[in-house]
Formats: sequence, structure tokens, C-alpha cells
Amino acid sequence: MDLSAIVEESCARDWETVEPSAVEPVRFAVIGLGWFTKGRALPALEASERCRPSVLVSSDREKASDLAAETAGAERGITYEEFHDGDESDAYDAAYIVTPNALHLEYVETAAELGKDVLCEKPMERDSDRAAELRDVAAEGGVELMVAYRMHTEPAVRRARDLVASGYVGEPMSVTGDMSQRLLERIDPDPDQWRLDEWLAGGGALFDIGLYPLNTARFLLDADPVAVTGNVSSTHDAFDDVDETVAFSAEFPHEVYAQCYASHNARQSSGITVTGTEGQVRVEPAFFQDQPRKLHVSRGDGRATVELEKVDQMLEEFDYFADRLRGDAPLYPDGDHGLVDMHAMEAIYEAAESDRWVTVE
Amino acid sequence: MDLSAIVEESCARDWETVEPSAVEPVRFAVIGLGWFTKGRALPALEASERCRPSVLVSSDREKASDLAAETAGAERGITYEEFHDGDESDAYDAAYIVTPNALHLEYVETAAELGKDVLCEKPMERDSDRAAELRDVAAEGGVELMVAYRMHTEPAVRRARDLVASGYVGEPMSVTGDMSQRLLERIDPDPDQWRLDEWLAGGGALFDIGLYPLNTARFLLDADPVAVTGNVSSTHDAFDDVDETVAFSAEFPHEVYAQCYASHNARQSSGITVTGTEGQVRVEPAFFQDQPRKLHVSRGDGRATVELEKVDQMLEEFDYFADRLRGDAPLYPDGDHGLVDMHAMEAIYEAAESDRWVTVE
Repeated sequence: MDLSAIVEESCARDWETVEPSAVEPVRFAVIGLGWFTKGRALPALEASERCRPSVLVSSDREKASDLAAETAGAERGITYEEFHDGDESDAYDAAYIVTPNALHLEYVETAAELGKDVLCEKPMERDSDRAAELRDVAAEGGVELMVAYRMHTEPAVRRARDLVASGYVGEPMSVTGDMSQRLLERIDPDPDQWRLDEWLAGGGALFDIGLYPLNTARFLLDADPVAVTGNVSSTHDAFDDVDETVAFSAEFPHEVYAQCYASHNARQSSGITVTGTEGQVRVEPAFFQDQPRKLHVSRGDGRATVELEKVDQMLEEFDYFADRLRGDAPLYPDGDHGLVDMHAMEAIYEAAESDRWVTVE
Repeated sequence: MDLSAIVEESCARDWETVEPSAVEPVRFAVIGLGWFTKGRALPALEASERCRPSVLVSSDREKASDLAAETAGAERGITYEEFHDGDESDAYDAAYIVTPNALHLEYVETAAELGKDVLCEKPMERDSDRAAELRDVAAEGGVELMVAYRMHTEPAVRRARDLVASGYVGEPMSVTGDMSQRLLERIDPDPDQWRLDEWLAGGGALFDIGLYPLNTARFLLDADPVAVTGNVSSTHDAFDDVDETVAFSAEFPHEVYAQCYASHNARQSSGITVTGTEGQVRVEPAFFQDQPRKLHVSRGDGRATVELEKVDQMLEEFDYFADRLRGDAPLYPDGDHGLVDMHAMEAIYEAAESDRWVTVE
């Protein structure tokens, strides 16, 4: 798309391959019923033409059933144990896994055994070994696996990617990206939440939100990092086990450098910029769901800002996944794609320990 | 200043201590008559109430005399040799040194011998040893030395600094900054220019423009870097001897990280952002003289952009220097201040060679 087309069709679903009316909706088992599921995922599944939130899965059957009763399209609520036992498996086609990171693998194992395709929240797992196992389990079970990178279907990010791919910025030279929020003040005040538990989360700000600029840099450049360095820090007692803040740099092929920052204790902020020989594209705000997106571009003597209609990012992501399950086009953010981030993030932690640049496997 | 005062008085010269009508103007010997002097410095000196461009100094007496003839307030043009011989030294009070970096020291030596105060362009010299000698020579001669960091009197940067100092962003957590231009296309197409000569310049993009985000981060945080890492690269043949592009990170006290980028071969771009626990301030565009400044702030749920009247940055800088010479207030960007940047930049080059983080002396 050129800039003129982007203004006219900024929110185009250029990834659609299948008419929703031509196929059956994808029925989901939604595994994990925290605030993100209730506030973000279920409303999107309720609104979707392509998806249904058929079965809700939680530790507590009553909680799951109560939520199912008030969720349009949901048939029933079951427990994690019942999911593992294959209960209600006729009622869903795919599993959406939104548990703590270290529990992803076990639900993918069960889904693969049951022949259910998988949409797994990011990061894939608590470490790269388990993420590789997760990928292999899905492949051996013959089920599709998508890692839930919602930026891949965020229109502002897709349009920025279109511009980079079309040569609008010339040769890409650098990327800067950041994502910050006050986790304990604005998201969840609970100091016992799983995001702060090293075993359940695997990492802190880097795993939870630093992944956004990292993965979106990869998506915009259509390239993978070759080496990284970084530093982690924590100022708040709640972040004893995991990083509160991370600043990292990633080297991409052709000496393109991405410089990224993420913090669970800084003012809400998110943006990503690609600067090239000829121009610049910047999405800001970028990564949080409740802010209208702006795409800032500059080239030659000029600057422009495209204000995009807000979309429901989770709806876009679910519909993309359903489109890929019902059609023949390949899934972009598959297990191999997600594993690159796991290796890169572990290399950033290693670099933070050693004060070095570390090659990404 | 709070935000309300900033909107009302964004371009306030809050550094003024002396009424220009109460003192004699400072008469300058302007040493080095390249495009920056002709396009930026002389127009500012002509416009200033506090300064006069009395004597112009160049390799070629005719060139210097011709330029003096068409410059308001200039009395005559002399050669570099004549300057070193003390010719016309009654006609100026201070020397403004805008030669290639590696020649700064010799003109400071002469100015100090003659008892003339010095405004020296950045970076101080081609390396930190010579920069330290430059500082010492000025001190031993009993003359004032200011390094010409024009961001220190750029109103948008000063207002951003006011906000950070007042606690608007809470505790500062991170800085991002960048400055890029196509040197050979938009500034000077000459591949033999001194900026590309390692001996004359000392460094490439880092020394020439990477210094802006580095020094401005210091100015905004009111702190100095303790460790750095970075990478340099060159894609264009003209940058065989010096870095065309640099990406670097600097650690400041209290685990504040600055991530910076500068390139002589990327699209013109410049900005600097401080993100804190409570808010964010961003100046963008920031460092080039021909773009109107914007100060972007956010805190709580809100965002605002202050559009500042454009000022002549060189006029602000010259007038600040003259105010300090004629009054008693101390100069902020003195030789010690400039030397910190020299050490930090050398540490960045060392880090780029070793793929490590390097402590700044």
C-alpha cells in the first residue's frame, strides 16, 4: 500500500482469505479466566462472526459456569482437570490458552492429544526449552499452533510494515520501541500475581511487555535478531524475582539496530519507530488496546500523521486465526516464530548478567 | 515551571542575569568560516544585542575580508596565522572557535595567551587527551571556556528539563534520543570534507551528531553516564575512516538507561524522550535548527503538545555566553562538562570494538 491507499483503507483486513459466511465459526475452549480474558478476549469472541467462545475453562467450575452463563455463545464452563480429561471436547475446535506462561505447555499437550488447534498467548512458555517442546508437541499432534501476537493484525502496525516493505523509508537503518505501564497501580495491585512469580512467568517486564517492541521490530523489518545486549533492574519490592524494567538493544542483519525499553513501573507509554535512509514511520501510541492508533510518517521535507479508526485488536487476532484455520493460507506467527523471541529474550538476560553482547541462537 | 507557565512563557530566557543595555557587547573573533559559520553563526551575531562579530578569521585573508565587508558589525578579516600572532586582538574580547575538531586546541592556546574568553564548538577536540589539555590551557590562562551545546539554551529542551526537575515525570526511568541526517546529500556533498577525516574529526556520526542525544540526556537528567555500550557501522564508501552510524546505550545513576541513535546516512530525524514513573516528556523535532520545536508531554490519562515559537538557537547560545561573560553567574557547559562527553564517546567506541559495556572514566 502507498500512503494514499493507507489513508483511504487504513484498517483494511488485507489478511482475509475466507468469507465468514462460507465457513463454520471456530469454536474455542478458552483456558484461563483472568482479567485479560474477561476484559479483552471474551468481548472479542462474542463480537466475532468467525469465532465462538464455546467452553470456558478455569480452576473453579462455578466460576467458569457463571461466566459462561453471561457470555454470548458460551455453552458451558469446566475445570482444568475436566479439560485434560477431554470433557466437552466435541463442543470446541480450538484452544485459546491464556494461563500463566509456565502452564502453556500442559494445555497444548492436551489440545494436541485431542486434535485441537491452538492459539497460545505470548510469550510461548517460561523458557525456550519448554517453548520448543510446546512447538514440537503441536507438530506431532498435527494441530495448528499460533502464538498470539496481536500486533501482527493491528492495522497501524500492518500499514507501517507495508510502508517499510514498499521502500517508503529507503533502507531501514534503526528501530526504537518501548512499552511501559504501572503494573501494580493501573493493571493489578496484587503483589502475589503470577506475573511476578519467576517460575510461573519465566521473566518480568521483558517477557510480558518488552516482547512487544522486540517482536514488532521483527515484524516490521521482516527479519530476526542476530545479537542482543541489555540491562534489567527493579526498584519496587514486588519485583524481587523478575525484572521490573529492561533496556535492550538487538542487532538485525545488515547492521540494523533496534533499541527497546519496557517497564512495569514507568508511565504508560508505547511506540515503535523505523528510521531508514529516506524516511521514517512511527506508530505511537502502539501497543495498548485502549488508545487510538496514530501512524506518523516522514520523508523528504514532509511529515504526516494518519489517525486510524480504533479496532478491537483481539477481534482482529481471533478472526485472523479463524481465517487461517478455515482456509489454506499459512499462519505467520507459528511456533518457530515464537521460539525466536524466546531465544532472544534469554540472550538478553544472559547479556544483562555478563555485560556483553550475546549471539541469538 | 509548571505546564501552565510553560505554555505561557515557553521561550522565556530564564537564564538572563544582565540587561544588555547595561553592559558593552562582547566582540568576537570568529575562527573558521565554513557553511555553519556563514549560515548559522554570523546571522545570529549580527542579530544579537549582546554580541558583535568583530573579526573574521580564515585561511584566506581575502575570503575573510570579503565576508567581513558584508557582515554587520564585522571590522575586518584576518588569517589564522595573523590570529596566532595576536593581530587585531584589541578588536575582540572572545574567540568563537568553529574549525575542524582537531584544530580547536591550537586556537584555544592562542586565545588563552591573549586573555580572550572562548566559546568552542562541540565536540571539544578530536580526543579526550587533547580536550583535557584544552580545558587546562583555558584555566591556566584565566579565561572562560564554554563548549557550544546549543540545546542548553533551546527553549523546548529547557522546558523539558524544568518539567523533569519539577517531578512532572516522577522518577526518571529511561531516555531515548536520536539524530540523523543525510550528510552527503543534504548538508555537504564533498567526500573530502573534514567531518569524514578521522584525524581532523576524531569520530564520525557519534562525535558530530550522536553527541546531541548524549549531551541532552545528561542535561535533562542533570546526571552523567557511568557506563556505555554501542555499535558503529558504515555503509557508504565515504565513511571508511569514521562511523556513519552509531547506536549506543548509556547507563546513568539509579539504573536510568538512555538509548540513542545517530546516523549520517538516515532520513533527517531528531528527538529526545524522558519517561518516568509518572509521566513522559518528549521534544520532537529536537536538534535541527530549521524545524519548529514541539514539546510533547503525558501524565495520568492525558497527553498534550506544546508548539513553541521558533528561536534562533545560535542567537540564544551566543547571548547566554555573553550574559555569563558580562555577569557573575557561572557557565554551565564548561570544559569539565564537555570532557565527560569526550570520555563517554571514547568509551562507546571501545565498547563497539569489544562488544562489552565499558565504564565511563
